Amino acid sequence: MPVIAAMLLAAASAAAAPPEMVNRIIDEGMNHSEVMVNAEYLTDHIGSRMTNSPGMRAAEKWTQGKFRSWGLANVRADPFPFGRGWSIISSSVRMTSPRPLMLTAIPVAWTPGTNGAISAPIVVAPMKRERDFDQWRGKLAGKIVLISMPGDGDEPDKPAFRRLGDEDLAKLNKFQEETYDPEKVARQIRRAAFDAKLDAFLKAEGAVAWARKSYRDGKLVSGEGYAFGTNETPALPGVEIAAEDYRRLARLAKTGDAPVLEIASDVRFDDSDTNAYNIIAEIPGTDPRAGYVMAGAHLDSWAAADGAADNGAGSVVIMEAARILSRLGVRPKRTIRFALWAGEEQALLGSWAYMNKYLGSWPADAPGLNGNQLYYARINARPFTPSAGYRDLVAYFNIDNGSGKLRGLYAENNVAAVPMLKDWLAPFALMGAGTVAIRRTGGTDHVFMQQAGIPGYQFIQDPLDYGSRIHHSSIDTYDHLKGEDMRQASVVLAGLLYEAATSDKILPAMPIPTKPAVTDPFKYEDLDDAQN
Amino acid sequence: MPVIAAMLLAAASAAAAPPEMVNRIIDEGMNHSEVMVNAEYLTDHIGSRMTNSPGMRAAEKWTQGKFRSWGLANVRADPFPFGRGWSIISSSVRMTSPRPLMLTAIPVAWTPGTNGAISAPIVVAPMKRERDFDQWRGKLAGKIVLISMPGDGDEPDKPAFRRLGDEDLAKLNKFQEETYDPEKVARQIRRAAFDAKLDAFLKAEGAVAWARKSYRDGKLVSGEGYAFGTNETPALPGVEIAAEDYRRLARLAKTGDAPVLEIASDVRFDDSDTNAYNIIAEIPGTDPRAGYVMAGAHLDSWAAADGAADNGAGSVVIMEAARILSRLGVRPKRTIRFALWAGEEQALLGSWAYMNKYLGSWPADAPGLNGNQLYYARINARPFTPSAGYRDLVAYFNIDNGSGKLRGLYAENNVAAVPMLKDWLAPFALMGAGTVAIRRTGGTDHVFMQQAGIPGYQFIQDPLDYGSRIHHSSIDTYDHLKGEDMRQASVVLAGLLYEAATSDKILPAMPIPTKPAVTDPFKYEDLDDAQN
Repeated sequence: MPVIAAMLLAAASAAAAPPEMVNRIIDEGMNHSEVMVNAEYLTDHIGSRMTNSPGMRAAEKWTQGKFRSWGLANVRADPFPFGRGWSIISSSVRMTSPRPLMLTAIPVAWTPGTNGAISAPIVVAPMKRERDFDQWRGKLAGKIVLISMPGDGDEPDKPAFRRLGDEDLAKLNKFQEETYDPEKVARQIRRAAFDAKLDAFLKAEGAVAWARKSYRDGKLVSGEGYAFGTNETPALPGVEIAAEDYRRLARLAKTGDAPVLEIASDVRFDDSDTNAYNIIAEIPGTDPRAGYVMAGAHLDSWAAADGAADNGAGSVVIMEAARILSRLGVRPKRTIRFALWAGEEQALLGSWAYMNKYLGSWPADAPGLNGNQLYYARINARPFTPSAGYRDLVAYFNIDNGSGKLRGLYAENNVAAVPMLKDWLAPFALMGAGTVAIRRTGGTDHVFMQQAGIPGYQFIQDPLDYGSRIHHSSIDTYDHLKGEDMRQASVVLAGLLYEAATSDKILPAMPIPTKPAVTDPFKYEDLDDAQN
Repeated sequence: MPVIAAMLLAAASAAAAPPEMVNRIIDEGMNHSEVMVNAEYLTDHIGSRMTNSPGMRAAEKWTQGKFRSWGLANVRADPFPFGRGWSIISSSVRMTSPRPLMLTAIPVAWTPGTNGAISAPIVVAPMKRERDFDQWRGKLAGKIVLISMPGDGDEPDKPAFRRLGDEDLAKLNKFQEETYDPEKVARQIRRAAFDAKLDAFLKAEGAVAWARKSYRDGKLVSGEGYAFGTNETPALPGVEIAAEDYRRLARLAKTGDAPVLEIASDVRFDDSDTNAYNIIAEIPGTDPRAGYVMAGAHLDSWAAADGAADNGAGSVVIMEAARILSRLGVRPKRTIRFALWAGEEQALLGSWAYMNKYLGSWPADAPGLNGNQLYYARINARPFTPSAGYRDLVAYFNIDNGSGKLRGLYAENNVAAVPMLKDWLAPFALMGAGTVAIRRTGGTDHVFMQQAGIPGYQFIQDPLDYGSRIHHSSIDTYDHLKGEDMRQASVVLAGLLYEAATSDKILPAMPIPTKPAVTDPFKYEDLDDAQN
């Protein structure tokens, strides 16, 4: 049969979704799943995937190869400017006085190595504002500076691991007003510059390294850092020390001679390619005028473990939904695009780049903002100016809340979209994914879609132990992923994408957000906040 | 006034306890406490206290110095034969292939160091019985052998930290039959020999080191080992690897080339004095024929952290009770003796030695039992033969359940003792310590008292996070101790000792246990158990 005829037939069949397709998706996703095999390869063999690190480069290649092997179309690595690659080769932090003791610690991302072992006494000098510098001037030369308050041990009296009950789900169904406080935004941006100022101060004072306390107890570390720009590398090595070890050092310094630490940190920078890459793949639609639906998850991670729940899980679920739909040979009206974002952990940089390249733009960034400041500046940028491709993207679904099963969707205050989202999720209600809750959510790659009025949604997921101990931490490993949950997620996502891509209706748009009114214009800024 | 007159006066006043003494004890223990200052010194400055390690030697000196400075009498270090001192100077375990990654691990106690770094591929060869050796013969040469099953990640759906409510306390008040199963005892003793057999097998096969999995998730390690005898040191270095890291290694080995590990472990043995020492101190009684009461806690710890909750907490509470009573100048009828035991973590060796030296004896150990076997053999040894000092010890109180506040006492099936214990605890009921529960408990230094018919008791304590994550683990540090709880514990212990030492009555004795009847003589031994 001529090519044209085949195309017409395919287009015709796509217009009415075959009713058995949901069952075929479930069969392929539950009985022939590849999601955990891919999760294992991505997390164990490739491992951590800091943007532009060797792990991320390997993941960019491997994910594209997988998409191609499954017959996805237009598979590509879509570049955007980022900064330096950084990875840890080896590291250790040891107390050598008053007694020998191995400490649990990790180099802070994008800080330099120690060039062999350095040994120095500590000084506990908590600083979180520029005005804190004064009391330490002249006292830091030759020291390893402990910059955090030590605090007290935690009392974890809530279960670390949990699933959502009906009552929990009901609580999520609440319209939330968006507040706007320009003074708070300005403060956030100002504070995000503190790391660089602290590094300059410590360098000028002749300190040899700095250490901060992990924000979790129980010997977990995470090591986040934001000085990824080519010209932003700090002068001093920084390490994050487990809370228990940090507090012991602080107590020893208060009750006796300053402990001496030996830090050896071998880290590698790579400037051979300062671009980062979003990985894109597609199942082409049959109607070129029907636009596209998209699902995305960030592929990048932090370095403390293998980026399994954050967000290897989301990445391989996206890939598995692509595999399932491709394997079933679906020919939807609309193109289904799959995106694996880079640079999410810094400032949602990959999805920001995508928006600016394909959908429109916001006012240019203020000059001189560093990596840590971009996030606060950009999530408050207004107004968005759509470009020619703006109307093509009719729905976006994001996965970035660990490996817990999908329980439904956050409707992000789009009340008009609720009935349609409920309708699409209905076939998966008996798999636990039937809830649509009106609540707004933030912090991941659907944010800029929302900020442009595009229907972009996050899934409600069973929390498991994601927030309590896995997120960004040194135990974000494959063994804390839940296979049954991830198979369910792959099936639900594949089904939802199929329905969104074949539906006769499209989700109601939101007005494009412009600069909102100040929520509480009569409030005085807190004195303590105003001074820094 | 003449010395004799003063002694008679003191004896007379001790016969009737001054009613305000409880309030004076509370004032001294709550408002002038030194318990946390001592806890900090013991855990931070001295640190881990493996029996005969440099830390334990320092603790032996420091605790005696403290007791003497508070005016305690007959302060001494009471020796018993133990074995080798062992301590960690530095250690690291790193994966070098398929990618560089620092792992969380600790050398297993009393295994040798690596003499520099060793590098070798792993082989996953789980073994727990001698018959498991066969399938690995000829396959281990040049390898680092992973001897544990990897298992799955945990799902911690109960709170890690908790306190006892009334309902919890009520559940403890249950008489528990003691069971006796000689086949089970024989099996426990047989299995406790496995470590040595495994070491010999691995050595004969040419393996270079072995690794086991931590029994807790969340990157916690503990590193227990039992080959402390002078002639028992294993041939091969052993390390305990955090569960997440161990499972990753096992998965990598199953899905690709065997990972390569680099292990560098610098540990030190010290045979300069193979005796261990219990630390003893006293407040002398006024009536030499009235015998003594005693409180004890083990001072030794494991090496993964600082032995804070296990059992620095109990040790400094014992010390603080001694300080309070000494400071108040009490002159009780009976001597109050304070004991800080050594060797508890191996097989309750310190309290065993005390029993044999001062109170009586059990049949001699079977020849050739190693350290790990002694525990099972001795807690089943019968009958006890009292010696001349047996009747002198009229009450013993043990603290070894972390830093949680005292909630009362376990009466250890001594139903006749319950009214008297309740009476003694009554003044402290409003401080939360009024419960007497009939239940039996084991596993610490009151066990051999019970096994000799001596009234020896453990306290009920709020569990906090002791069992869930602190006990033996790498976060057994000062910051997880609770000061308010430990001040309460010191006060309650001081008060209870004072009442026991001044009371007109003594606790009813239990019959001296003899070999019990087999509880279920008609049971067939499980086939799987019988074969090893």
